[in-house]
Amino acid sequence: MARYKLIIAYDGTSYSGWQIQPNGISIQETIQHALSLVLSGEKAVLIGSGRTDAGVHALGQTAHFQTEKMLDLGRLVFSLNGILPPAIRIKRAACVPDHFHSQHDALSKEYHYFLHLARTMDPFKRLYAWHVRKKLDLSLLSLAAEGFIGTHDFTSFANESHTGAAAKDPVRTLYRLTPVEIEEGVRLEFEGNGFLYKMVRNIVGFLVESAAGLRPLQDTARVLTARDRRAAGPAAPAHGLFLIRVNYPERI
Amino acid sequence: MARYKLIIAYDGTSYSGWQIQPNGISIQETIQHALSLVLSGEKAVLIGSGRTDAGVHALGQTAHFQTEKMLDLGRLVFSLNGILPPAIRIKRAACVPDHFHSQHDALSKEYHYFLHLARTMDPFKRLYAWHVRKKLDLSLLSLAAEGFIGTHDFTSFANESHTGAAAKDPVRTLYRLTPVEIEEGVRLEFEGNGFLYKMVRNIVGFLVESAAGLRPLQDTARVLTARDRRAAGPAAPAHGLFLIRVNYPERI
Repeated sequence: MARYKLIIAYDGTSYSGWQIQPNGISIQETIQHALSLVLSGEKAVLIGSGRTDAGVHALGQTAHFQTEKMLDLGRLVFSLNGILPPAIRIKRAACVPDHFHSQHDALSKEYHYFLHLARTMDPFKRLYAWHVRKKLDLSLLSLAAEGFIGTHDFTSFANESHTGAAAKDPVRTLYRLTPVEIEEGVRLEFEGNGFLYKMVRNIVGFLVESAAGLRPLQDTARVLTARDRRAAGPAAPAHGLFLIRVNYPERI
Repeated sequence: MARYKLIIAYDGTSYSGWQIQPNGISIQETIQHALSLVLSGEKAVLIGSGRTDAGVHALGQTAHFQTEKMLDLGRLVFSLNGILPPAIRIKRAACVPDHFHSQHDALSKEYHYFLHLARTMDPFKRLYAWHVRKKLDLSLLSLAAEGFIGTHDFTSFANESHTGAAAKDPVRTLYRLTPVEIEEGVRLEFEGNGFLYKMVRNIVGFLVESAAGLRPLQDTARVLTARDRRAAGPAAPAHGLFLIRVNYPERI
């Protein structure tokens, strides 16, 4: 038995998200299907670092699988990309220890969320950034963002999952939330030890309301303390969100 | 009567090209339809600077139309963008003299063609650049490109149009053909006084063959002189091509 790790990029536009679902085609099943062809029919289960919703993109989703076969890594990547649709690409493959788990061993995850602030939307950004027409004050955005950094109960920024369950432990640590000005917009860089369901998009929705002057100064602490989803306002749309990287301990 | 000019950006992926055709939906008819709604049913004919093929994109296509109505330019742009699908955006509108013609008055056009040279294709570039797996020598590419600059008979690089007609006058002047290195690729910048049917894509196909070492050094002059489409090799795919700008005399 050997275990392999895949680093995966995908354009999530036409998929129902990472995780296998009854309705719509998921990234996970698309790659599992390609994998079963490469493994000559052996069914491998592909376990991702976490799910991404419909329309969410990835530059560095990470997943692992186990197989009886010894695989040449270069050939594995080449064969999978030959079968997969062009919207999904395997960037790298690696051998990992038998105990490696892409979800449980993740030390941190990095997400980027793109705000597109041009007056007229760039049609090439329509599927990859949230076009916000409101006038935003970026110093208000930075101020509101700072309040999220550190360890907090993020209940106000977490949706219930599809199974209706709230997270058992809603405490997470956000190491970084950096707004970076880019051409006609802002890239919001998140890094944290874990993210609750829809947490990034809920925070982005809140930050945009703050930057638009729709919330009082330093509302972040109040809304975090409320521990009530209704305190935080609507989520930002899925298509501005990218899973950039999943970080693991050096030794794996 | 008043005449208006529109500057238009579009993602050509899902359209059958600029020009109205029996099969498939064109950019031209999509905008004309939006225009007829904005003009309360008045049928305006939208004349573009030239057609773009299916899958070709634009950042600055230019078109004009004439109407009985006096239009507020800001409202015209806003109303059209409210009706148009997000893949097509009106960037600007202007009033132009009654004799202005977007095709006949064009002094020059600028196109960019994107080559994506990463080993593994970036899924976000799959619809916006040509992924070339061959190893390219960029000094060979530059050398081959230089030979195109100036006034030439471009018959070897022109396809017959859909109507089966060759251009009456196949002589065009290329002011600029500049390869610019970008992240994991090359942007080929073209500017010329006019372009024959598929001329940019045929030149790009030739440049890639040259850069891959599949053609002798300084083959450009020989192939131009041949005045035979078969001398130049296959066209580059449509999806790497962008119409960037159409230039008109200062006074209009």
